[in-house]
Amino acid sequence: MRAEIIAVGSELLLGQITNTNAKFMSAQLADIGVDVHYQTVVGDNPARLEETIRIAEGRADLIIFSGGLGPTKDDLTKETIARHAGVELESNKQALQSIEAYFERTGRPMTENNKKQALVLKDSVVLENRYGMAPGMAITVNEKTYMLLPGPPHEMEPMFRDEGIPYLQRLSGSKEIIVSTVVKFFGIGEAELEHKVQDLLDSQTNPTIAPLASKDAVTLRITAKAKTAEAAHSLIEPVLSELHNQAGEFIYGINEDTLSSKAASLLISAGLSISAAESLTAGLFTALLAEEPGISASLKGGMTVYDVQAKIEQLGLDRKRIETYGTVSSECAEALAERIREYFHTDIGIGLTGAAGPDTHDGKPAGTVWIGLAFKDRTKSYQLRLSGSRNTNRLRAANFALYYLIRELETIKSQN
Amino acid sequence: MRAEIIAVGSELLLGQITNTNAKFMSAQLADIGVDVHYQTVVGDNPARLEETIRIAEGRADLIIFSGGLGPTKDDLTKETIARHAGVELESNKQALQSIEAYFERTGRPMTENNKKQALVLKDSVVLENRYGMAPGMAITVNEKTYMLLPGPPHEMEPMFRDEGIPYLQRLSGSKEIIVSTVVKFFGIGEAELEHKVQDLLDSQTNPTIAPLASKDAVTLRITAKAKTAEAAHSLIEPVLSELHNQAGEFIYGINEDTLSSKAASLLISAGLSISAAESLTAGLFTALLAEEPGISASLKGGMTVYDVQAKIEQLGLDRKRIETYGTVSSECAEALAERIREYFHTDIGIGLTGAAGPDTHDGKPAGTVWIGLAFKDRTKSYQLRLSGSRNTNRLRAANFALYYLIRELETIKSQN
Repeated sequence: MRAEIIAVGSELLLGQITNTNAKFMSAQLADIGVDVHYQTVVGDNPARLEETIRIAEGRADLIIFSGGLGPTKDDLTKETIARHAGVELESNKQALQSIEAYFERTGRPMTENNKKQALVLKDSVVLENRYGMAPGMAITVNEKTYMLLPGPPHEMEPMFRDEGIPYLQRLSGSKEIIVSTVVKFFGIGEAELEHKVQDLLDSQTNPTIAPLASKDAVTLRITAKAKTAEAAHSLIEPVLSELHNQAGEFIYGINEDTLSSKAASLLISAGLSISAAESLTAGLFTALLAEEPGISASLKGGMTVYDVQAKIEQLGLDRKRIETYGTVSSECAEALAERIREYFHTDIGIGLTGAAGPDTHDGKPAGTVWIGLAFKDRTKSYQLRLSGSRNTNRLRAANFALYYLIRELETIKSQN
Repeated sequence: MRAEIIAVGSELLLGQITNTNAKFMSAQLADIGVDVHYQTVVGDNPARLEETIRIAEGRADLIIFSGGLGPTKDDLTKETIARHAGVELESNKQALQSIEAYFERTGRPMTENNKKQALVLKDSVVLENRYGMAPGMAITVNEKTYMLLPGPPHEMEPMFRDEGIPYLQRLSGSKEIIVSTVVKFFGIGEAELEHKVQDLLDSQTNPTIAPLASKDAVTLRITAKAKTAEAAHSLIEPVLSELHNQAGEFIYGINEDTLSSKAASLLISAGLSISAAESLTAGLFTALLAEEPGISASLKGGMTVYDVQAKIEQLGLDRKRIETYGTVSSECAEALAERIREYFHTDIGIGLTGAAGPDTHDGKPAGTVWIGLAFKDRTKSYQLRLSGSRNTNRLRAANFALYYLIRELETIKSQN
């Protein structure tokens, strides 16, 4: 089944709101195996809406509309589809009752144009609106299926999920189940990852593997179709382990995992405590870790040491050493990690120092970052050369620190 | 000029990401008087993309594309437009140099397919990508203007705003100038603000005033049209001062101001130093302040004290006092502010403590936050009762601390 999603509303074309409806519907449709080929946005203009419907009918079997079901004279979706498809509008008793009940409940006066909202396409299946007045509806005419949904996301989403999707599943009589696993990578670019796993990407049809770049991570979505969820999972499993073989060092998690949630859960389950001394990130590393509930079991504290004097005085860094190597150095990052670990009496200490930009810092070009990790028996450090803006660099530095921490914690875990 | 926005990317059709690019571009185009009639999303499929272009050409003079300029073989926007419009692709020297420089800077290996990103449509105007590799471009062929922009919003947005929009303004030779001023509010809800300034909203036609809610602030956009920028500004000026009369206490800045940039510039210009002791926010306050270049002149440091023991030991809080009042209290917030101020020898100390959620903390319900501000001669504190999720509460707490800081700094400034 090929689908097109049409959002109707001039406020979308004016850039006043974002079309989150198309994303929501597309994700739901992907899960039941319906291919969305186009998403279109058109204004509250009946001629342009009708032309949009005509184009959609030439390339889709299922056309889903959101918006334009309201009570004002701008709301023309039903009327336009009725005229175009040659279907009458009739007042729906159940819808009218629920609209009257709404006005009684809220004590607001009901106007004549509110009754318009009870009009539905004749012989359509009415979809109940539990969070607003306008009912949704679905109808198949001349082998095309039209589904009409309200525009406000808090009305549309439950209606589509709870009534729209089951309607489409009944319609297609599909017996196939779709299962997806999202694999998350860090420290590798999209192009480099694709190059690394090219053979795997090329050879797959079921499951399919689709790359997805985001600002701070690269993601692959593995999607399998099968008769049962178990069978779908057993198609995904070998692809997942092949990815681990080919690019395992860059994998930090799956599905809902984030760098901070993964680091937090590894810390908590290992019973290890942590603290951080941050210069360029100025608290961002501890702030990211603290996004996770329960982290107080591991995160003891941190210190933002934003100038050299603070580094030396408050953390007791060796003044000579700092003067010799500079604050943007392996030596400084390791000293920060070691000293903060002692200061808060934790198992692990993290040190972050560097030149966030836009200017050089202590003679080092913007984007130069050193990350130190101190443990009871060893200290190590990593250098980054970042090329983003000041705050992209700061966020990437904090994320890299989480990534190196995850790698260490995974190693510790595998040794126990 | 009639425009159509085409976003290219299968990840949009799979519902993996939201098409925020269409919203951003539409709002910018509305500001310069370009009517967007359609937004379309199509996948990484050359035949369907070409059909989409053909349809767009039948109904728009300006077609703006986002996405599909990347290095992978899925990225086909340039190639498809080149074939469709009969324009060659040629390697752009400047773009190639900037890509090579990127790889040199980051020390990552450059692959053959990265070179593809330096290809541009022959005779097009190249739009510089300051935050990524793929250059944008614009060209007019057979009376249709095509503008190609990268997909990632952090690359597309500055490119479109700083190069795309001025290009279109030159193209249209428009004689009317549109000037906007965005006024930013904090600590007041959208509905409450609209209620407060209802008369002003209702009575305006030029300039217009449009409210816009975002997650952490409420914004009003004042937009004036006039023959000259000066004339437009003189239309905006009286509206701005009327807003200050009616809701001035909630205004923290205009245009690009953020809470952190405003607080930073006030701190730096007053020559005041600052430090913070953070519990629930765990470094987020200092991390936000450090987003601003030059802040090292004022931000001396901070401490994340995530458990009671750390608060008492590392900051020397009075154990008895903490036991009497609890860690989520006015007394604790003020003590944190006072002690961190002494610790880092700064003019101002900030203390943040509270129950971020999801659970109660120290007997206080989730969302209870205390913010302390310590100065040489006085200490004060504010209570918040927030109702969001854990991380919404943490961010709002840090933003409220910035807001209270701004109010104090504005008062100090007006007294000098």
